[in-house]
Amino acid sequence: MSDKQAREAIRLHRRLNGKITIESKISKIKPKTIQLIYTPGVAAVCEKIHHEPDQKYYLTSKANNVAIVTDGTRILGLGNIGPYAAMPVMEGKAVLYKKFGKVDAFPICLNATKKEEIINVIKAIEPAFGAINLEDIESPKVLEIVDQLAGELPIPVFHDDQHGTAVVVLAALLNSLKLLKKKIESVKIIIVGAGSAGYGICKLLSFAGCKNIIVVDSSGAIYKDRDQNMNRYKEEIANMTNPTLQEGTLDTVLKNADVFIGVSGMSGILSDTMIQQMSKDPIVFALTNPEPEVDPHVAKKAGAKIIATGSYKHKNKVNNAIVFPYLMRIILDKKIKKISEQMLYQTAKAIADTISGKDLSYDSIIPDISNKKLQKNIRSALKKF
Amino acid sequence: MSDKQAREAIRLHRRLNGKITIESKISKIKPKTIQLIYTPGVAAVCEKIHHEPDQKYYLTSKANNVAIVTDGTRILGLGNIGPYAAMPVMEGKAVLYKKFGKVDAFPICLNATKKEEIINVIKAIEPAFGAINLEDIESPKVLEIVDQLAGELPIPVFHDDQHGTAVVVLAALLNSLKLLKKKIESVKIIIVGAGSAGYGICKLLSFAGCKNIIVVDSSGAIYKDRDQNMNRYKEEIANMTNPTLQEGTLDTVLKNADVFIGVSGMSGILSDTMIQQMSKDPIVFALTNPEPEVDPHVAKKAGAKIIATGSYKHKNKVNNAIVFPYLMRIILDKKIKKISEQMLYQTAKAIADTISGKDLSYDSIIPDISNKKLQKNIRSALKKF
Repeated sequence: MSDKQAREAIRLHRRLNGKITIESKISKIKPKTIQLIYTPGVAAVCEKIHHEPDQKYYLTSKANNVAIVTDGTRILGLGNIGPYAAMPVMEGKAVLYKKFGKVDAFPICLNATKKEEIINVIKAIEPAFGAINLEDIESPKVLEIVDQLAGELPIPVFHDDQHGTAVVVLAALLNSLKLLKKKIESVKIIIVGAGSAGYGICKLLSFAGCKNIIVVDSSGAIYKDRDQNMNRYKEEIANMTNPTLQEGTLDTVLKNADVFIGVSGMSGILSDTMIQQMSKDPIVFALTNPEPEVDPHVAKKAGAKIIATGSYKHKNKVNNAIVFPYLMRIILDKKIKKISEQMLYQTAKAIADTISGKDLSYDSIIPDISNKKLQKNIRSALKKF
Repeated sequence: MSDKQAREAIRLHRRLNGKITIESKISKIKPKTIQLIYTPGVAAVCEKIHHEPDQKYYLTSKANNVAIVTDGTRILGLGNIGPYAAMPVMEGKAVLYKKFGKVDAFPICLNATKKEEIINVIKAIEPAFGAINLEDIESPKVLEIVDQLAGELPIPVFHDDQHGTAVVVLAALLNSLKLLKKKIESVKIIIVGAGSAGYGICKLLSFAGCKNIIVVDSSGAIYKDRDQNMNRYKEEIANMTNPTLQEGTLDTVLKNADVFIGVSGMSGILSDTMIQQMSKDPIVFALTNPEPEVDPHVAKKAGAKIIATGSYKHKNKVNNAIVFPYLMRIILDKKIKKISEQMLYQTAKAIADTISGKDLSYDSIIPDISNKKLQKNIRSALKKF
């Protein structure tokens, strides 16, 4: 990001003093209205819910409220900057939730970083919310939180870094492969990063039929029985990827790969020489924010056929913002209780299929976030859930 | 409340499906805007706060956000109906916060009732909020929470049942005494209820100069060294009230009292005979919601000179809704860290003084909630805080 853009962003935030605000749905509040929405009338509404618990979805805002929960330990590419400095991201997310999904999302930035504390707070605040969106919490802690809450919470837990990223990557990949006439079953894919995004992408791509994925972390390629720097999610990755048990660093395993997917959190780690050693017509998704694994111009010059980043600065924005507002709208409307791979897969296909023909090109592999057909297409893809 | 009103309230709530909604402050979201409010631009804002923590008050919505926290254990006069059934009250409160104070309040209804759990959740969610409003949590637990958080939380804890109720009662009392030409130092006041409201009123009235208060709970008058049904807050009450150590039930101690203040949670406990035995020109504040300690018509017939309830159904609405939106606006604007008796006293005086002359009468002891002068008067009264 340029200094100019940084100054402009700070100036805008200072002028707004918060990007979201809570509004009353009732515009004219007369004395009679107060009797209905407050005392004494509201007591009848409370009693109704007390006796018919399901009514909470119809008589309160629960059905439309989402908590965007973070502990500030892994904010963008900035790392552990804490819950206060995390607020601008969570509010930005709330703005997009509202704008594209008509979802009411509120930031819950936690002064607590222990797994059990985070789980306890989420369970405690659940009554006011229809869903939880976990955001920018360090991995593998956050993956354990997702797993544990999925079994214990009566509302769905959407983990955007894991689920949202996986969906938009798969959508972009499906369209890229279509353009290059390559098959998902036969391409070699390198995913760099084994945190929430890497894990989520790996799982969804495997579900979608990819047979030759290698995930690389700071200790190099992950393979079955690697003993260094592992955790139960990396074990899971090892079990579903790297069939030929390749070892070594990124530059070694990237040779002859068709697809590079960077969710490493480290900008600039992909060099032009590395891209030159990939297979014909390489696909490069350099998704780390705010600065990608490789500058798109450098990647292009090195021969990458399709290039995408996670930022709104470049073409081919592979950013989960195209997923979470639309998908959450449907999760809330359908009162879905759990996120499944099948659901994520259908969503990715629906997003990919939203553009075709002339609209689909090397520089346009993913629909624009404001594409009017997105909501309808995803809804129809998720009809059976 | 009539059956008709109950049905109307439920119908309105069903139509609204939530009384509050979260809005973006940015109306037009262009691709360039997304770069500033989301990635990559937002990173500059996060880093700014990370390096200059005070900036959180200027670059995020923290400075205007209030969490309305309840555990649902003492909702209105309905008792322990739980956090889900509590939502309509908290949302109603959020509507009033917005309408009269331009405050952004969000309901945090807790699936947790233990004191330590509640304290931990509030401490954990603090980063997104500029103040906490505790609401409808059972006493004395909630008073202990207020005390403990006041020493440990970096933002103020406003306990509406305690602080807000005390302010509006004192305001109404000051104007009533003015009308009846009685002196606050010499009147005998009976407060029924020794929960949050009773404790808060007793403390503020003592601070304001009342010398002859007796607080009555379910075991009768509270006096120094009573051994039944006490807790540390009732001990505190005993120490500042009942100078002649009167014992006995409400009907005994109410004899010759000038003022009845009912915050008992029990409707209908004040009879006409009891009112007839009070001193000349009795003042009756029957504040329990949704149904008061005595029907206003019954009280009037029995000789009460000034009658108030807590409901918007009757004249003289002694309801904290006239306090919390305005006071919180100033607490947030001035970044006040702790609520003090002096602050509550000044607020009560400012509210009382908002009406005078012809506007002040037996049927109009308190300004209307939408009185345009309220905000200005309270702000000017709190200038020095």
